[in-house]
Amino acid sequence: MQNYKIGLVPGPVSVPEFIRKAWLEDYGSADIEDEFFNLYAANQSLTQKLLHTKNKIVITSGEAMSILWGALKSTLKPNDKLLAVASGLFGEGFAWMGEKLGFNSKLSAFDYDDIPDPEKVIDEIKSFKPKVITAVHCETPSGTINPHLKIIGRAAHEVGALFVVDFVSSAGGVELNVDDYEIDIGLLGSQKVLSLTSSLSISSISDRAWDVIKNTDYNGYDAYNYWYEVPEKKYTPYTHDWPAMKALNLSLENILNNGLENNLKRHSEAAKLCRSLGREIGLKLFPKDEKFSSPTVTAFYIPENWTWENFNNALRIRGLAVGGNYGKLAGKVFRIGHMGSQANNELVKNGMEIIKEVLNK
Amino acid sequence: MQNYKIGLVPGPVSVPEFIRKAWLEDYGSADIEDEFFNLYAANQSLTQKLLHTKNKIVITSGEAMSILWGALKSTLKPNDKLLAVASGLFGEGFAWMGEKLGFNSKLSAFDYDDIPDPEKVIDEIKSFKPKVITAVHCETPSGTINPHLKIIGRAAHEVGALFVVDFVSSAGGVELNVDDYEIDIGLLGSQKVLSLTSSLSISSISDRAWDVIKNTDYNGYDAYNYWYEVPEKKYTPYTHDWPAMKALNLSLENILNNGLENNLKRHSEAAKLCRSLGREIGLKLFPKDEKFSSPTVTAFYIPENWTWENFNNALRIRGLAVGGNYGKLAGKVFRIGHMGSQANNELVKNGMEIIKEVLNK
Repeated sequence: MQNYKIGLVPGPVSVPEFIRKAWLEDYGSADIEDEFFNLYAANQSLTQKLLHTKNKIVITSGEAMSILWGALKSTLKPNDKLLAVASGLFGEGFAWMGEKLGFNSKLSAFDYDDIPDPEKVIDEIKSFKPKVITAVHCETPSGTINPHLKIIGRAAHEVGALFVVDFVSSAGGVELNVDDYEIDIGLLGSQKVLSLTSSLSISSISDRAWDVIKNTDYNGYDAYNYWYEVPEKKYTPYTHDWPAMKALNLSLENILNNGLENNLKRHSEAAKLCRSLGREIGLKLFPKDEKFSSPTVTAFYIPENWTWENFNNALRIRGLAVGGNYGKLAGKVFRIGHMGSQANNELVKNGMEIIKEVLNK
Repeated sequence: MQNYKIGLVPGPVSVPEFIRKAWLEDYGSADIEDEFFNLYAANQSLTQKLLHTKNKIVITSGEAMSILWGALKSTLKPNDKLLAVASGLFGEGFAWMGEKLGFNSKLSAFDYDDIPDPEKVIDEIKSFKPKVITAVHCETPSGTINPHLKIIGRAAHEVGALFVVDFVSSAGGVELNVDDYEIDIGLLGSQKVLSLTSSLSISSISDRAWDVIKNTDYNGYDAYNYWYEVPEKKYTPYTHDWPAMKALNLSLENILNNGLENNLKRHSEAAKLCRSLGREIGLKLFPKDEKFSSPTVTAFYIPENWTWENFNNALRIRGLAVGGNYGKLAGKVFRIGHMGSQANNELVKNGMEIIKEVLNK
């Protein structure tokens, strides 16, 4: 079992028992059974409902970094223009990846405790005229939600660019409408709101994006073009992960049966509670404005006079695990992950109680 | 449960219950727990024993195609020379991949029912002087084992080439000595002899290969260079699959506790039984010479007067699932997979009994 009694790590989250049990069956070969291809199709359909999209869904085996790389590699050729809209680590990550891959990569950067200014972004889109624009919905290290995806999506299409969005730690827990926001490629991981292990990656891909993908003709494990006719052709580019697909099915059914709106509500309530308890105990919220603090993860400054190491140790001794941070936020900001199975008021309360105890010593 | 009573598909194989149970625990976050990094290190050590190597082991999340691609991309730059030694589909696959990736890709091809002629291969190595040479240990579609890896490995190093070997469906079930064969990059999947789901890929990488990898500076999900200091730096390039790693640990411990030699014996006996029962019922072995018929998978010609579809349907109605085929072997050859959990005389006997019944009607 996990080493900590109270898990509030912002992904991978605690995997509920009903999902873990998916792995108890011996499924047979995903390469040859109609049952598997039907399961894949069912998951595509459920995901479309989750994301409010008619776009084709591609579900692949591997952690979400595979589709962050794959989305860029499948749509850009060397020297093609990439505009990475960023108010945090993952947004800037796209720019770094683009550079490493030899694309003409431009960063539209905003402060990590802020969100992108849509007018500035639109100006940059109009002047740079990128082929692909990346943005992040929930910057997990910053604990922020970018509310301007729709505006950016519109601007993207006005210049004929593809709009690629990382919603790895928001989809299912935060309001998100892929078609309304005109998201061409949407990127989702299994270990956040969906509460699976990190084994699957889910992408929504528009027709416009498929055209570019076919044209780009990228080849590799993370190439999207091999997935266009899955599962219709009863074929996958490699042996798929049947139990993980079953687990995904259970998770999606669970969310949709409870009502997506209820799931969003469960997240926003847990987040509100987290922020209010944080305020009570004197924690300082990292996002500049509570309005864009994420329903799935709350980022606080590490309390004064504490190092991250000492703070984390004190929490761990008392059975609480929270998220640290990376890059320029390392040692400065920590995070409470209340997403998926962890979007639970009781859990948040118990976790914040421990923090209060530690700070009052 | 799987739809077929008798599973003799040559990967993914039936996952034994003691391995499936690994997923029943809720492990916590693989990003932050020492326990995970210790598990990773333990699996590296067990894998070194399985493969008879001192080389560093890299274990990644995703199906084995990820490391077939990753091995090429991590070591070759456009126009670099790749020699693909092939006596089957996967061997030729490397040449195709190399072409797609813009390498100077040459195929050293041999018949699919045969094995590479080492003298011809050495000649081609000496004249072409490739940077990387690929070979396949067990060509699963052909049911053959290439017994000449050691000779090819030596020749590779005489010209300063890297030797990359796909032993996805042989390692653990067939005699294989990575260091003795001078294999620089060895590629292994989790869904064959190891009898896990298809979620993990395992690579053995020599110091010589690490130098080339660092120099090539490839970036992507399947890039090896990020893994050089895993788990020493207590970091992974993405969130790893803890339950799958636990399952791998259980499988490796099981094989090594029973004795690797005993595992090899169990496979060769199941294979011998399969071939002899096949002979009895009039099946024609596909490999030209029984000497190089694989201990992990036996390929037979589809019996005369049968199409693959009709034959397979007749078997499936009676509860038996076997492997079909691909490319030029599709409709011509079928396969009995007796690897890992399926390297079992009783299982093979029952399967062949059903084939006998079908052929005698």
